[in-house]
Amino acid sequence: MYSFNNDYSEGACEEIMAALNNTNRCQSAGYGLDEYCESARRKIKKQLQCENCDVHFVVGGTQCNQIVIASALRPYEAVISAVSGHINVHETGAIEACGHKVLVGDGNDGKLSAQGVRKVMEAHSDEHMVKPAMVYISNATEVGTVYTKAELSALRQVCDEYGLYLYMDGARLPMALVAADNDMQLEDLQRYCDICYLGGTKCGALFGEAIVIFHDALKKNFRYQMKQRGGLLAKGRLLGVQFDALFSDDLYLELARHAVDMAQRLQKGMKDLGISMYVTTTTNQIFPILHRNVIERMAKEYVFQIWEKWDESSDVVRFVTSWACEESAVEECLAWLKKALDKNPQQS
Amino acid sequence: MYSFNNDYSEGACEEIMAALNNTNRCQSAGYGLDEYCESARRKIKKQLQCENCDVHFVVGGTQCNQIVIASALRPYEAVISAVSGHINVHETGAIEACGHKVLVGDGNDGKLSAQGVRKVMEAHSDEHMVKPAMVYISNATEVGTVYTKAELSALRQVCDEYGLYLYMDGARLPMALVAADNDMQLEDLQRYCDICYLGGTKCGALFGEAIVIFHDALKKNFRYQMKQRGGLLAKGRLLGVQFDALFSDDLYLELARHAVDMAQRLQKGMKDLGISMYVTTTTNQIFPILHRNVIERMAKEYVFQIWEKWDESSDVVRFVTSWACEESAVEECLAWLKKALDKNPQQS
Amino acid sequence: MYSFNNDYSEGACEEIMAALNNTNRCQSAGYGLDEYCESARRKIKKQLQCENCDVHFVVGGTQCNQIVIASALRPYEAVISAVSGHINVHETGAIEACGHKVLVGDGNDGKLSAQGVRKVMEAHSDEHMVKPAMVYISNATEVGTVYTKAELSALRQVCDEYGLYLYMDGARLPMALVAADNDMQLEDLQRYCDICYLGGTKCGALFGEAIVIFHDALKKNFRYQMKQRGGLLAKGRLLGVQFDALFSDDLYLELARHAVDMAQRLQKGMKDLGISMYVTTTTNQIFPILHRNVIERMAKEYVFQIWEKWDESSDVVRFVTSWACEESAVEECLAWLKKALDKNPQQS
Amino acid sequence: MYSFNNDYSEGACEEIMAALNNTNRCQSAGYGLDEYCESARRKIKKQLQCENCDVHFVVGGTQCNQIVIASALRPYEAVISAVSGHINVHETGAIEACGHKVLVGDGNDGKLSAQGVRKVMEAHSDEHMVKPAMVYISNATEVGTVYTKAELSALRQVCDEYGLYLYMDGARLPMALVAADNDMQLEDLQRYCDICYLGGTKCGALFGEAIVIFHDALKKNFRYQMKQRGGLLAKGRLLGVQFDALFSDDLYLELARHAVDMAQRLQKGMKDLGISMYVTTTTNQIFPILHRNVIERMAKEYVFQIWEKWDESSDVVRFVTSWACEESAVEECLAWLKKALDKNPQQS
Repeated sequence: MYSFNNDYSEGACEEIMAALNNTNRCQSAGYGLDEYCESARRKIKKQLQCENCDVHFVVGGTQCNQIVIASALRPYEAVISAVSGHINVHETGAIEACGHKVLVGDGNDGKLSAQGVRKVMEAHSDEHMVKPAMVYISNATEVGTVYTKAELSALRQVCDEYGLYLYMDGARLPMALVAADNDMQLEDLQRYCDICYLGGTKCGALFGEAIVIFHDALKKNFRYQMKQRGGLLAKGRLLGVQFDALFSDDLYLELARHAVDMAQRLQKGMKDLGISMYVTTTTNQIFPILHRNVIERMAKEYVFQIWEKWDESSDVVRFVTSWACEESAVEECLAWLKKALDKNPQQS
Repeated sequence: MYSFNNDYSEGACEEIMAALNNTNRCQSAGYGLDEYCESARRKIKKQLQCENCDVHFVVGGTQCNQIVIASALRPYEAVISAVSGHINVHETGAIEACGHKVLVGDGNDGKLSAQGVRKVMEAHSDEHMVKPAMVYISNATEVGTVYTKAELSALRQVCDEYGLYLYMDGARLPMALVAADNDMQLEDLQRYCDICYLGGTKCGALFGEAIVIFHDALKKNFRYQMKQRGGLLAKGRLLGVQFDALFSDDLYLELARHAVDMAQRLQKGMKDLGISMYVTTTTNQIFPILHRNVIERMAKEYVFQIWEKWDESSDVVRFVTSWACEESAVEECLAWLKKALDKNPQQS
Repeated sequence: MYSFNNDYSEGACEEIMAALNNTNRCQSAGYGLDEYCESARRKIKKQLQCENCDVHFVVGGTQCNQIVIASALRPYEAVISAVSGHINVHETGAIEACGHKVLVGDGNDGKLSAQGVRKVMEAHSDEHMVKPAMVYISNATEVGTVYTKAELSALRQVCDEYGLYLYMDGARLPMALVAADNDMQLEDLQRYCDICYLGGTKCGALFGEAIVIFHDALKKNFRYQMKQRGGLLAKGRLLGVQFDALFSDDLYLELARHAVDMAQRLQKGMKDLGISMYVTTTTNQIFPILHRNVIERMAKEYVFQIWEKWDESSDVVRFVTSWACEESAVEECLAWLKKALDKNPQQS
Repeated sequence: MYSFNNDYSEGACEEIMAALNNTNRCQSAGYGLDEYCESARRKIKKQLQCENCDVHFVVGGTQCNQIVIASALRPYEAVISAVSGHINVHETGAIEACGHKVLVGDGNDGKLSAQGVRKVMEAHSDEHMVKPAMVYISNATEVGTVYTKAELSALRQVCDEYGLYLYMDGARLPMALVAADNDMQLEDLQRYCDICYLGGTKCGALFGEAIVIFHDALKKNFRYQMKQRGGLLAKGRLLGVQFDALFSDDLYLELARHAVDMAQRLQKGMKDLGISMYVTTTTNQIFPILHRNVIERMAKEYVFQIWEKWDESSDVVRFVTSWACEESAVEECLAWLKKALDKNPQQS
């Protein structure tokens, strides 16, 4: 059974495994104070074309969001997110567990709009309500869409107007950067974000996310925040070794290119078979609408996720491809679907 | 300038002031362990026709909601509220500050519906999401409406089905109980709620709310929870003295009747003047829609709250009456409005 | 049975009751934005001889400590207290419930010493430990002792050296100010503290504490913090009315003088009867060591607190006097003790 | 420079690296729901001789302590620890960040005694104080000592008497189990603990700790708690693969035996050189007292930790050995010391 269930079904890319094997018996300082982390930091800063930022490594995304948001906000402050934002739905209230309300702002296709932020700000006027202090966006979003520079500029502007931090959750940032409709580069991050993280877990690493802090006010005592939330890995060099590999040459984006390429091939192939999409994406997640008969049979051959009910006979499902996705698996999947639909046409 | 701004603009009713004066120099135990609290507890239980409940007194509503909700939930659990629920909007994230997400459920006229609860439950399926564990309703609601027994039964049923606690915020409970469309009595509370509070602050007391715990699982170590959230008043007998007075004879409902009567007279008078209501209520809050010209002039004579923008020329405003509201003030207000509208008709 | 159990057994002083009665039917704005609070703030600032401070009123001490400390600290920061500090022992972990560790520093007689603070600072060196950021002292202390200006200066100095806020819990501040060994005045507070509170509950009011913020960094958005912790009283003017009365003329200190005078008379009388003190105090709490035979009989006539076991036959007990303590009660108590000791001498 | 700084300076043992390499391209379910975790769970249960326990894997120790303790306690409850307990000193207030006070109990050599627990329980009597609900012990302790079965029995008894959970932090449990003075086996854990964790990070793994829940009351919804604290690793199978290797045959204890053997050889060698120990340990941490002249020179050749000041001329230092420690490094270290002390005798 081949899995298109998510982009963290496999281990790490070859380069990372080699580096972990090669450094395994070396001794190093703990908690991210080692030379591997230092090297990774240098490479990341170089690719971001930004020397004046702090880079910290943590193991996973939920932890990352907790540390960043709890670190930036005062107790009565809140963060604004799209309704589908990971922090709003899929982190078991991790942000609220740190004491902060997640406010929902309007937008389309999984994105938060500048107008959505403005509307939230206008509704929060006095000390009987929380005070919004940060905007959270995911890029790529949870439904595989990508923010354009125009959208990011508009968000940056409304953030500046109201004194809000802008935080980008980059769990799938490289997939956004290589998307067909993307017009942003790594070096642009500093212009839009006050803080962001570059995802490793979904982008070729065993685990790990790199937090990048651009805004000076967010830098102070950040390691205390990390330690308090369980975010200082004892053998921190494991994170350094991995990000050092990912940011050597073009590997980070190369891995993302493969993942996105596979998903896009799948999406095109499905459309060619007459399958409708819930939303047409440009990254490594796609959302076909399939008849339940097809889903039932397909679930015996492939792993994928039921996203939500579409209508009485169909569901939206999610297919995700990773850096490790095999081309042959994509071809076979499309072939399987063609055969299945021949027998059981969706529109009849 | 007469204030219809809220129902806590004045001090306490005569009976309470007399009792506070009479007992002022008596010595008593602290923190609610005194004879006045004991007497008040007895009277409340009697009026609720329920011996097997625990009664605790705290100073205010936000504290009350924090203590009750934080006390009932495990860290990963959440509470479901109407979008206009006090805990969702007007407590500066007090529930989130205790670590819990407030989930919003559908409903109409400020009420949460059983169907709204069910929809939230169906959407929360695994450990990547918070686990809803309590339903929060306000009765009367924040927009002055009242739950019927049928609505409460439906909520109780969905709570039982999913294992949820049902908590009623009764900041304005007596106003609900005396409303024209109400069909519930104090003795019915135990059938619908696992826990509730009977408001004092807005119902004739200087301050104070009486938490009533029906469900045994919620009773244990409740005073620890109160103390930790700053909810054990040193001179706790002040709460006992007040609730003892409120629950002597029919005083609690009598004060509410006056408040509701005044608001309803105001609402009827306004309607007679051709003023539309945002929502027609049956309690002590009313929500007329007034032209901004009228509002501007009226604000020089009366205190009231702008609730929300209605359209380009009008706003929804809120008038609230209390146990202390003077009949003459209501008459004068209507007379003022009549005169103002004569000069500046709203519908022209 | 006469109670020396604490200093919050009675209601409020006459002046406060009169003011509450007189203003009872007046309408005012809610949440502390009324004219009574404004007047009280002016009077407090005048007596502190400090215009550039913010004054806020809350109902009780635990709430006060929670709001102040949670408001001042970042998530990883801690507060240093004497081992007997109220926040360390008697608030059911209210500070930890806000996320902060209470660190214990050395000192004598219930006081925290500058050297004790320094020792804590030297032990907290990196991000694997909490970062101390505030010093908490009670004056008078929980065992009735008083800080001298020299001790306060030394604390201020060590706080400045390490960048710590100094917070004084003044639940019994007026009792400290009128103590025989005190050399500080209300106007000196601004020189030693960054923030403090002036106790009302134990000093003649029904309830209420006045938070005074001297340090500019602690002033911002304070009302949000208050609201989130349930600390904005709806009928906030009740706090204003009371503090306005307390800070009219010399009433605040006058009430304290009476309380201290009664306790000191009791202490002297007991010493004259040959009773040893656990610690000789100069305020309104005294700590005689009594034989258990005496305690047992005395407990039938008087209410007081067993403080701790002294030896096999004796306990330390605590007697507290309030602004309302009757002179005759003190005399009768001493007479009772004389008679009891005649029959059952302690040292035999 | 050879490092004796800690037991997490190197990567993972050969068996684990091989397993990670071999499974790297396999696809598996996320978040610990894979077959590798399942296999590891079976092996752990078998070695613990306990089928009726739940096993969960997390990345690190601080996270582990947070999840376990926050999961077990109600908001007003506290955990009792030795003063040197990791949660009390070295986790940046992670437990307090979850809302819980860490109470300190007496004991010797880094151990908490049953008598120490009893004393804490006797001092916590009412709702003005936190309610202790859990005992936390580390075995081996933070200073390398080991609990005997007699000590554990006594702790178990006092826990049963007062209704406390007993939680063992086993970051270095295998080192305790192979210690010369240990009389407990893996299968005894269920008799003493309600919950514990078996350390991986310090015992041959890249990272990872295995939480074992014996007490039924602690099992419910545990994965929600894990997710909320950032403790569900996306590629959870990495934890399964590692623990599956560690609990194959005797590997877990074998690795520990080597670590302990190296430290004990170092300790004996140092003693033979006339060096005193701060505390004589039986595990993989040793605490020699060295003259500052020696320390200064040694710091150029070896990495180790200054533990605390001993006297005017000497400090206690800590040497830690791991599963990867080279025998030759131990010999060379002792040789270096012999030479250094010949030149600069400590006792002169």
